Amino acid sequence: MYFATSNENKVREANRVLRRYGIEVVPLRVKKLELQSPSLSEISLFAARHAYIVTRLPVFVEDSGLFVEALNGFPGPYSNYVFRTLGVKGILKLMSRVSNRRAWFESAVAIVLPPYEKVFVGRVYGKIAEQARGSGGFGFDPIFIPEGESRTFGEMDIDEKNRLSHRALALVKLGEWLKSSIAQFKQALQAT
Amino acid sequence: MYFATSNENKVREANRVLRRYGIEVVPLRVKKLELQSPSLSEISLFAARHAYIVTRLPVFVEDSGLFVEALNGFPGPYSNYVFRTLGVKGILKLMSRVSNRRAWFESAVAIVLPPYEKVFVGRVYGKIAEQARGSGGFGFDPIFIPEGESRTFGEMDIDEKNRLSHRALALVKLGEWLKSSIAQFKQALQAT
Repeated sequence: MYFATSNENKVREANRVLRRYGIEVVPLRVKKLELQSPSLSEISLFAARHAYIVTRLPVFVEDSGLFVEALNGFPGPYSNYVFRTLGVKGILKLMSRVSNRRAWFESAVAIVLPPYEKVFVGRVYGKIAEQARGSGGFGFDPIFIPEGESRTFGEMDIDEKNRLSHRALALVKLGEWLKSSIAQFKQALQAT
Repeated sequence: MYFATSNENKVREANRVLRRYGIEVVPLRVKKLELQSPSLSEISLFAARHAYIVTRLPVFVEDSGLFVEALNGFPGPYSNYVFRTLGVKGILKLMSRVSNRRAWFESAVAIVLPPYEKVFVGRVYGKIAEQARGSGGFGFDPIFIPEGESRTFGEMDIDEKNRLSHRALALVKLGEWLKSSIAQFKQALQAT
């Protein structure tokens, strides 16, 4: 199975999850066509259609973002851009003197395997920390504290974070779907 | 000439500019495919290609944004989304205690008329006000003071703002190009 990404960490994370389903993940460098949309599902599905049309390979794409409730979902789908321009400090400034600190990380994994088009979503709820803590992970990890934890994602080691992560949740759903689809396919073959 | 937009104000503004070149602008409701990109030119050109492929009509698209120097260009191409989520107050909060208040509005007008693909860019430089002033215009107009002015765009009437606007500058370039292209085309016809 191909994964349209140039991020080695994401490939490693996908392999760790999908290996359990007997699936090996290989990175595929294809231009990822990302739409502007408030919906990660719409963005990832469009990118998956484009990747399939260009490559005709079994390829999935993943898109993720941090959604802050008090900021009406900002930065959401534009988390990468906002990380590069405002950074962690910008989010903390926007959240200064804001008491509602609820937020979630969302990941949308999309795959186009005609006649199927599927999007699998994973979410981790939590809150925005008062200040950045930890140097693990990447992006907004140092200011996100998942529910039931006192540490930020930035303070966890990668295995620990991946056990809890939005991306792992979405990838598990992909794995389950592939497993049952493959089983059905084999059954159909045997019936002929 | 068709304008792929559902914004009546933009159509009025385009007509005011392009009438001088003998061009009438008609709004065209076609889904505008907007990419994620830090470049308005790239976004508008991609959308113009898509609009042309879908409609086969002489259609132009326009995309604009506010770029704040101290925020590394934020909100830039995502100005609409940022206006809806953070609003004017969010930008003012990010800019509190920031002394470099330089900013610019940019507009990119793109047109695909095979074999031509053109993008015309207009910019207005200025600065971010300390607080919102005026109720004219829309979006971030109440916090933008153009160079050589003391009032914000929000404090100007629409005709006055349009004389200075980034969008008008880009549309003038479109008008000039269309005028010279049409002249060349007529000349070529007469030569045959």
